[in-house]
Amino acid sequence: MGAVGVIGGGQLARMMVPAAINLGIDIKVLAESEDASARLADCVVGDFRDLGQLRDFASQVDVITFDHEHVPLENLKALEDAGVRVYPPSRALRLTHNKKVMREALASINIPQPLFAVVTTPDDGVIENLGGFPVVAKLPVGGYDGKGVRVISTWDDVTDWLADGEILMEEYVPFTRELAQLSARNPSGQWSAWPAVETRQKNGVCAEVVSPAQNLGERERKAAAIIARTIAEEFDVVGVLAVELFEVGDGRILVNELAMRPHNSGHVLTEQSVTSQFEQHLRAVVDSPLGSTDHRAPVGVMVNIFGSAVFEDFAKVAHEVPDVKFHSYQKGPRAGRKAGHIVVTGEVVDVTVEKARRALQLLQGGTP
Amino acid sequence: MGAVGVIGGGQLARMMVPAAINLGIDIKVLAESEDASARLADCVVGDFRDLGQLRDFASQVDVITFDHEHVPLENLKALEDAGVRVYPPSRALRLTHNKKVMREALASINIPQPLFAVVTTPDDGVIENLGGFPVVAKLPVGGYDGKGVRVISTWDDVTDWLADGEILMEEYVPFTRELAQLSARNPSGQWSAWPAVETRQKNGVCAEVVSPAQNLGERERKAAAIIARTIAEEFDVVGVLAVELFEVGDGRILVNELAMRPHNSGHVLTEQSVTSQFEQHLRAVVDSPLGSTDHRAPVGVMVNIFGSAVFEDFAKVAHEVPDVKFHSYQKGPRAGRKAGHIVVTGEVVDVTVEKARRALQLLQGGTP
Repeated sequence: MGAVGVIGGGQLARMMVPAAINLGIDIKVLAESEDASARLADCVVGDFRDLGQLRDFASQVDVITFDHEHVPLENLKALEDAGVRVYPPSRALRLTHNKKVMREALASINIPQPLFAVVTTPDDGVIENLGGFPVVAKLPVGGYDGKGVRVISTWDDVTDWLADGEILMEEYVPFTRELAQLSARNPSGQWSAWPAVETRQKNGVCAEVVSPAQNLGERERKAAAIIARTIAEEFDVVGVLAVELFEVGDGRILVNELAMRPHNSGHVLTEQSVTSQFEQHLRAVVDSPLGSTDHRAPVGVMVNIFGSAVFEDFAKVAHEVPDVKFHSYQKGPRAGRKAGHIVVTGEVVDVTVEKARRALQLLQGGTP
Repeated sequence: MGAVGVIGGGQLARMMVPAAINLGIDIKVLAESEDASARLADCVVGDFRDLGQLRDFASQVDVITFDHEHVPLENLKALEDAGVRVYPPSRALRLTHNKKVMREALASINIPQPLFAVVTTPDDGVIENLGGFPVVAKLPVGGYDGKGVRVISTWDDVTDWLADGEILMEEYVPFTRELAQLSARNPSGQWSAWPAVETRQKNGVCAEVVSPAQNLGERERKAAAIIARTIAEEFDVVGVLAVELFEVGDGRILVNELAMRPHNSGHVLTEQSVTSQFEQHLRAVVDSPLGSTDHRAPVGVMVNIFGSAVFEDFAKVAHEVPDVKFHSYQKGPRAGRKAGHIVVTGEVVDVTVEKARRALQLLQGGTP
């Protein structure tokens, strides 16, 4: 078997490396720069927007997969046309490149999701159909971690966006909490899911994950898994698929967002599950049987570290939190940037959440 | 913090890399060749016997540690004299370089061990003092994995060795089983142990590890831990210390061998423990607080894979053993060579052992 080629040198590519080392799979990364988070892998520095460089990278590996969803679709199609194995394929990936495309694709297979409409000019009829203001306005392309998403109460809130083109408008869902359903599928069609997790956002960004989602009804559990499986099978997803979901008080489970790669909401699985999402992604893209998604610990909690996450700082507080697992992405410090994360596993959810939060506070120099 | 420099590019250095990636510690390896098992790390190819090359390597890192115990002691002392941090220090490492030195050092601090003597010519009085034939003859230097060790019933069995110099003769201990006590110590003096494991040998080489050692009495558990702690503290060991032990029917626990680095008997901890031996070794050598040695699963079983362990072969059988964790060292195939290992965790020891053995048989193409 040749190498797995990962486009993008961020923390997701970085965290695929330990899985590759364990399994004995060679991995090669097309990174943006010499100091990418995944720089410790076998890296080629290059531009993922440049088809020539993509072709050259593809020629050095057996299969292409991704750290992010920013590679132009036409480039991926060109690679596929040239016989390169691209996983997930462009047919699946296009759903993650454009939120309007995703909503329409999910509607085409009857997946439960918020009501939506696409507008280019103010139209009060649309707002009425979505249940009235507030509604959620999204730029179809380029948004992530809260960017390109606004909860609006008047058309004036999106005057700037309307000048530029289409806006996706979505029903404001009065959700009780947010969940994520992680699963993986290989090209042979094997599909396997982890138990759904609860994701807790702060300022539109995932701050904390509790795994599995506590007190999730059997019906909701099943609904989340069926949504994920249906999307994976209908669109030929290969690799990890993360489906971000709204749990609505009336028992409905609706799709919020999709990612077709390892995802922040699945980091907790590295410690909690028999198979991490990074190992599962690699197993999937090389079309190997998937690993067990059983949990080793009843509860897992992940908290993101923003700004800076260096080992020196962790070492200063590690004596107080010996059972905390620290993950640094070795990125330069920047306010608001995901720099690392912490995972704690345990038996009791409240204790485990407290331990993770305390570790974060200690690490950030706050008073616990 | 600068990088951790690991001398030796074998599987132990290789398996330190995932821990270093997680923690955000830079690691640099002085490897024997371009195709060393640890080649995916940041490698310098060089000769660990050459002081000039060692000095050059040391100048690029913050602390030196080891994948093996073959670096000449005088070279390590020279590095230490030049102010290089070498962990474990030469004062500790000398015990692992020469079995005679180890026996005498352990005797000096009253550690329970087999009776021993050093001979250069046949001496029946010595044999009598060791309880008569059979006795265990060992070359003081260079033996490992059963090499350089013979159970002898007559002097004729070591005629060749006697021609070359000293032989260490040890009482043949009628042990009931072999144990290993893994622990780690940092330069600040913090010491932490995992529960002792049972190691099962085949042809003088470790074939299988059961963790924790089942039905180990509280007294034996304590004895194993005290032995390890005493050795670590008296000889300033830094990093992981593996103490191989004989459990004798009369309740005694005796030291068989020592290793001052991650050890085959501790591979099971990567999946079973909150902190792997590789992470603990790195935490220790950079003088960070040690991680929790609690178990995440009641039982862990490791079986070694000899000869060849490539992912393609694992992928063929992985559907039958989805909860088996596969570790390849990516070494070229060679009969009898440790090429990888398998770990299974579980609740019940017999079931877990059976699962691991079945996976090994499947992998090696045998009929389970």
